[in-house]
Amino acid sequence: MQKVREQLNEKHFLYQYPDGFSFGTDAVLLAGFIRPRRGHVGVEFGTGTGIIPLLLAMHKSFSHITALEIQADYAALARENVEANGFDHRITVLQGDLKHAKELIGGTVDFVFTNPPYMKRDSGKENESERKRIARHEVLCNLDDICLSAASLLQDKGEFYAVYRTERLAEMIFSLKSVGLEPKTLVMVTPKPSSPPELFLLRAVKGARPGLRTRPPFIIQEENGEKSEECRLLYETGVLSHGEGV
Amino acid sequence: MQKVREQLNEKHFLYQYPDGFSFGTDAVLLAGFIRPRRGHVGVEFGTGTGIIPLLLAMHKSFSHITALEIQADYAALARENVEANGFDHRITVLQGDLKHAKELIGGTVDFVFTNPPYMKRDSGKENESERKRIARHEVLCNLDDICLSAASLLQDKGEFYAVYRTERLAEMIFSLKSVGLEPKTLVMVTPKPSSPPELFLLRAVKGARPGLRTRPPFIIQEENGEKSEECRLLYETGVLSHGEGV
Repeated sequence: MQKVREQLNEKHFLYQYPDGFSFGTDAVLLAGFIRPRRGHVGVEFGTGTGIIPLLLAMHKSFSHITALEIQADYAALARENVEANGFDHRITVLQGDLKHAKELIGGTVDFVFTNPPYMKRDSGKENESERKRIARHEVLCNLDDICLSAASLLQDKGEFYAVYRTERLAEMIFSLKSVGLEPKTLVMVTPKPSSPPELFLLRAVKGARPGLRTRPPFIIQEENGEKSEECRLLYETGVLSHGEGV
Repeated sequence: MQKVREQLNEKHFLYQYPDGFSFGTDAVLLAGFIRPRRGHVGVEFGTGTGIIPLLLAMHKSFSHITALEIQADYAALARENVEANGFDHRITVLQGDLKHAKELIGGTVDFVFTNPPYMKRDSGKENESERKRIARHEVLCNLDDICLSAASLLQDKGEFYAVYRTERLAEMIFSLKSVGLEPKTLVMVTPKPSSPPELFLLRAVKGARPGLRTRPPFIIQEENGEKSEECRLLYETGVLSHGEGV
C-alpha cells in the first residue's frame, strides 16, 4: 500500500497513508500533556499510525506502552513505524478491539490514553475512505465504551488522558465520572487568543476525590497567525509545560 | 439590623449586611449571561440580597422572577431591596427551601438560575458569620439538590443558568446530566489573560440533545491590572455579549 514519509525530527519519522488521517496538533498536544513516570506501563486506545506512542518514546520516560488498533492496515503501519524508529522494545502494537482491552492486556496498567473519534456515528462527510471514517467517527466504539474499558484496565489512582472536541466536553466528563474516573486537569485549546476553544485536554484519575484544576487556555496561534511561543515550545520539546505550577 | 447602601447606577441601589456576603463580579457575570425572554417566568435559588434579579430587572426583559431564599434575614433584605427599587411587580421574594421549590412555586417555569454555595460543607474558614457560612458553604443544600430541584421545576427545553468555580465544573456537569439538564453553553472566566480560569458560566437546557458550545474565555482584567473592555461593557450594559456569534 502506498505510504508517505514525514520527518518528526532529524532522527525520527512517520509513515502515513495519503488517504488516511494525517496526524495533527491534537496528537502533539496529547503526547505533550501525558506525564508517564519511569517504570509505568500504559495502553493507548486507537493508535492509528502510532504517532502518539512514538512522540512519547522520543520525549518521555516510561516502561512500556501497548498501542491497540482495531484496523489491520493501521496496526501494520503502526508496527512498521515503531520498528523503523527503533522503539519496539518500549512499544507493542496490538491489533484488537478496545472494548476487549482488559482480556487482551491481561492485567491492570498505570495509564490509558486516547485521541478518540470526535464525531457521532452518522455525522460529517460521507465521501471519506472507510479507514478514515472509522478513525474519525464512532463507528466501532463510542465514548462510553472507551471510558468503561479504560476504567476496567486502570489500577486504583491510574490515569486517563484524552484530547477531544469541546463540543463533547460534557459528554466525556459524564462518561468518565459514571465509571469512577474523576476529571482532575483540564486544558482548553484555542486556535487564537480571541477564538472559542475547539479542543480540550483532560486528565482523569481512577478513584480520586472530585476537584478539577483548569490550566490557562493553550493558544495555538497569536492573533497575527504566527505560531504561539507555547506551541513552538511544545513542538520543540514534546512537552506541554504551559500553565504548570499556576 | 445594620445595613450599608451601595449604588448600582444613578437610579438603583442595594442594601447589604456588612458582615454578610457582599456581591461581586460573579453576580454581575451571571446576570449578564442570563437571557430571559419577554413573557418568561423564572426562579432563583438562593437570592441573598436579591442582587441578581435586581440586575436583571434593570437590564433585561422578562415577565416575573420568584427569588427563593432560605435565610429569613436575607429574604427580608432582598424584599426591601426589590421594593425600594420599585421592582415588586416583577420580582417576588419567597422565604423557603429550594429543595421544596416545586411545591412552593406550584408549576413549571421557563428558567432557573443560581449562584450557589461554592464550597463543600466543611471546607474553608470557620470564623465566618453563620449567614455568610450558609451562603458560601453547602450547609443547607448541595449541588445535587440544586440540579434535581431545577429539573423538576423547569418545563421541557427550560433553561438553567449558573456561575460556579472551575474546581467543581466536572461535578456540576455530572449533576446536571444526571437529571436530564444538558449543558449547552460554557464560558470560562479568568482573572487575567494568562491566569487559569477560576469561575465558569454554564447554561443547560432540559431535555436538549448533547452538544456544548464553549465561548472564548471572559477576561476580567488585562495583564496590567486594568479592567478589560469586555468587563467594562458588562458593568455598563448589564449584558455579557462577549463571544456571541462566534
